[in-house]
This record gives sequence, C-alpha cells and structure tokens, in this order.
Amino acid sequence: MNALRQQTVAIVGLGLMGGSMALALKGKVGRLIGVDPNPTVLTYAQEQGIIDTGTDDLQAGVKNAQTVILAAPVQIILEMLENRIGSYLRSNTLLLDLGSTKAEICTAMGNLPIGILAMGGHPMCGKEVSGIRAADPDLYVGRPFVLCPPRRATPAARLRALALVEAVRARPIEMDASRHDRLVAGISHLPYLLSVAMVRTIAGEAETDSTVWDLAAGGFRDTSRLAASDIRMMTDILSTNTTAVARLLALFRVQLATLEAALVAQDNEQLQAMLGDAHDVRKNWEENYQH
Amino acid sequence: MNALRQQTVAIVGLGLMGGSMALALKGKVGRLIGVDPNPTVLTYAQEQGIIDTGTDDLQAGVKNAQTVILAAPVQIILEMLENRIGSYLRSNTLLLDLGSTKAEICTAMGNLPIGILAMGGHPMCGKEVSGIRAADPDLYVGRPFVLCPPRRATPAARLRALALVEAVRARPIEMDASRHDRLVAGISHLPYLLSVAMVRTIAGEAETDSTVWDLAAGGFRDTSRLAASDIRMMTDILSTNTTAVARLLALFRVQLATLEAALVAQDNEQLQAMLGDAHDVRKNWEENYQH
Repeated sequence: MNALRQQTVAIVGLGLMGGSMALALKGKVGRLIGVDPNPTVLTYAQEQGIIDTGTDDLQAGVKNAQTVILAAPVQIILEMLENRIGSYLRSNTLLLDLGSTKAEICTAMGNLPIGILAMGGHPMCGKEVSGIRAADPDLYVGRPFVLCPPRRATPAARLRALALVEAVRARPIEMDASRHDRLVAGISHLPYLLSVAMVRTIAGEAETDSTVWDLAAGGFRDTSRLAASDIRMMTDILSTNTTAVARLLALFRVQLATLEAALVAQDNEQLQAMLGDAHDVRKNWEENYQH
Repeated sequence: MNALRQQTVAIVGLGLMGGSMALALKGKVGRLIGVDPNPTVLTYAQEQGIIDTGTDDLQAGVKNAQTVILAAPVQIILEMLENRIGSYLRSNTLLLDLGSTKAEICTAMGNLPIGILAMGGHPMCGKEVSGIRAADPDLYVGRPFVLCPPRRATPAARLRALALVEAVRARPIEMDASRHDRLVAGISHLPYLLSVAMVRTIAGEAETDSTVWDLAAGGFRDTSRLAASDIRMMTDILSTNTTAVARLLALFRVQLATLEAALVAQDNEQLQAMLGDAHDVRKNWEENYQH
C-alpha cells in the first residue's frame, strides 16, 4: 500500500467531524474528495480549499479512494454499510467511520466484502458547535481516538487506521466495540438524557411559573447545554446503544435514590459525605484528565 | 432614615458574594465594615480597600451599622438570626441576607425584635469560583435579585432593600419565600443533585474500567461541573429546601422514565419528539433569557 501522502482520501459527510478531518489531513494526503448531499456544503468546502473535489454521488466519490472516512450520523453509516458501499470500494481500501456508537457499526462492517479493510472509529471531541463552518484542523489534536476492530479486522487495517489517527495528531485507544459503547453510555449518553429530562422537568414547572427561566443562571446553563444537541444525531446514538444506556440509567437511579434517602432523612452527615465523594472525583478529573 | 451614601454598612461574610457586594457598594455608602472569622480574609479585604474596617467580632461589627448584609452559608445565617444578631442591632437597621434558600431564613427573620427592618434576599449569579479573591464589583449587574419579605416586613424595609439592590445594579424580583425555594429547587438544586449522582455513577463504572475518565469530554465536563460546588454550602441549601427538592426529584423521575420507556421500546419517533421539545426549550432559553 502506498503511503498516506500518496492516497486519495474520500470523506463522506462534511459536517464538523468530516470537515475537521479534511482540514487536519490537508497536505498530508494525495487528494481529498468530499461527499455530501448538500450542494451548499460542497461549494463552501471547495471554495475554502477544505477538499480538492466534491460530489453528492457516493459511488463516484469513493470508487477511486484508497481510504474512505464515513463521518455521518450513526444510522446513515449503518445504511451505507448495509446497502451499497462495500460494492463501490476497491479491494484493499481502508474504510474508517467516525460514528458515536460502535457495536452495530462494527457488526455491519463484519459483513463487508473480503478485501475491504474496515475499522470502527470514534474521536472523542467536545462538539458545542456543528457544521462545516465550524471545522477546525486542530479538533482532534491530543484527543482520544477510539479504534474498534470489526470481525475479521486485519493487521493491515489496524496499521493504516493508526497512521490516519496519527496524521490528525489524535491519541489512538484500541478497544472492542461493546466496551466502547458501555463507556460512552456513561460519559456521554447518560449526561445527555439527564440534561433532557431536567429541561423537561423545569419546562413543566414553567407552565405554572415562567419566572423560573429568568432566575436560571450558570448551574442551569451548564447542566442543560447538552439538551441543545442535534436531536437526529442523538436519536441515532441512543437507539443504537439502548442496552448500555438502560444499564447506566439503572445505576444512576440507585445513586440518585441514595442521595434522596439521606436528604429526606435529614442525615446531613451522610449527605455531605456523598456530596464530598462526588466533589473530589470531579476535582480529580479536572486536574488530571480534562483536556 | 439617612440615604445609603451616608450609612455605615456591615457585610457579614467576606466570600465571593459578600466581597462583591462590598466592591459594588464602594463609594456609594458612607462606610463599609467587613465581618469575617478568617483574619487572612480581613487583612486582604482591608489591604485591597474592599472594606474600610474589618473585625471578627459580629457584635462589634454590626452594632453601629444602619444596614447589615448577611453573606454566609444558610445554616450560619440561621444561627446568627436565632442566637444573637437581633439584640446587637440598632432599631431601624435594614437586615438583608444573601442566603440561597429563603423559607427558613424568612421564618427566623419573623422572630427578630420589632424595629429591625428584615428582608430575605438572593442574588442569582453564576458562581464557578469562590472566595474574596474572586470578588467582582459587577457580579450583580443586570442579574435577578430576589427579595422575599418575612412576616411583618414593613414598607420601609422593602424600599431600603430595593435601594440597595439598585445600588449594586441588580434587577429586583419580589416574591414570597416558598415560591423562591420552589423555583430554585428546579433551576439550581435539582441540577446539582443530578450532577452529583451522575459523577457517582461514572465513578462506579471507573472502578472496573478507569479508561472512562480519559474518554470523558465536553458533555461530561459541563454536566459534572456543579458536582465540584462547595459541599458545605450545598448541604446547607439542600437541607433547608428538602420538600421542594424532593418534589422536583419526583417530577424528574417521571421525565426520565418516560424517555427511557421510549428508548427501550425503540420508539424512535416518540423519543425524537421528546428530545426535540427539550432542544427547543433550551435554545429558546439561550436566546431569550441567558445573561
């Protein structure tokens, strides 16, 4: 296989993730093809030099690529894997996706034709903004980039995926798809659902007293921010990680009930001890892990 | 009563709130006395010109003041109200507190000697930092400042409290204490408990797979931030607002269970509709209310 800098790389989906991938790979690959159904996005990406050429035709966009990156919502990636894309690709093509859940995608990748070098991927980046106009060449720098091998993953697929992760200056972390999905259920999907349920709870209160919105300050702002995430993307994520999310919700309910028990019993010593544990854990994360 | 600019104002508790109150009142009152048990804080406040004089003696600090502001954790305010402070104050002194819950404080204020002009207060400010070194003269500018009249509150107490709120350029919002406590249970105490329970849930996961901390990104950062709040302050707040918080937790559980039901039933249409409601509510808040 020729080195990355001689390859044609096709990026399918030019949102924040795909656009940033294109910018991060610019000058490090032979040729960048962007595939997106939205003509405005394609025009913008070409005018800004984010991609070399663009097309809305998936088959045309990927058929000559040596590396194909799927940067779309999870259900779209699943549809591409199940319907058409395997037959469009040349043998020995690296197919990497950036979907937010990995088990269903890696399972679908396991059914691709022999010769396609498939690898599941998930770069862990904060995404308070979206769309190609927010694309950032440094989005992946220093960030964990999870790689999940599908059934029949080859050493070549692994090495080429690692080279790609290195090219965008992310930190590769290899793990199986079910472990990935369990971990992100905790740090990403649970926080999102809590944020949504909290906003819906306060919206119910606001029906009888709308002053609640005027009083809301920094605490509400931070905990409700995730509720403003893209709902199509989040529906895809939750519906492809139901078991892990339901498990985390069960564990969360126990924690919340334990706090409530101390609260309603007015056992302030026990309550403060539990609040203190969480305080220390969060401070420790902030000091040792926050990027 | 002489105007604010001729008064001696005593601020009891020189943390972020009390220190910012001092800075905001500087030049607008006759004399600023700071009361704090911590000699380092008193020295700093005097050296920086945040107060005119400082003392760790509550009685000495408040006895000659025409306005006294209690800027301490809720339980400390309650202890001051129940034990001593009423007998230290001159008749016709305005006594305003800045405690985060109001029902218990306003009840205790109702038992002060006749002649003390008491008013419950709660400025709604974001507080990601704490301590006098974070004090900011503009902390209250444009922010809602809730005023809750205790039993026997007089028109004079109300007018003088309004003048003080105006002096720090906040927006006064008058309401009874129980309504205040119900509203902040939703926008402040519920988010905090969710943040704590979430961090404790993920800490449980980390016991078997500590990689979870490395993968945690922006979503976790925002929703867990409140868990790092001061636990003494939060224990005071929760333990003086138990009924309202327990009510909000019950409403929250219903919302979370409804989301989970749609999720486990794989009813993506219903799920997306519920996520969409929360999305729109949060976006609307951001555009119309966020300060």
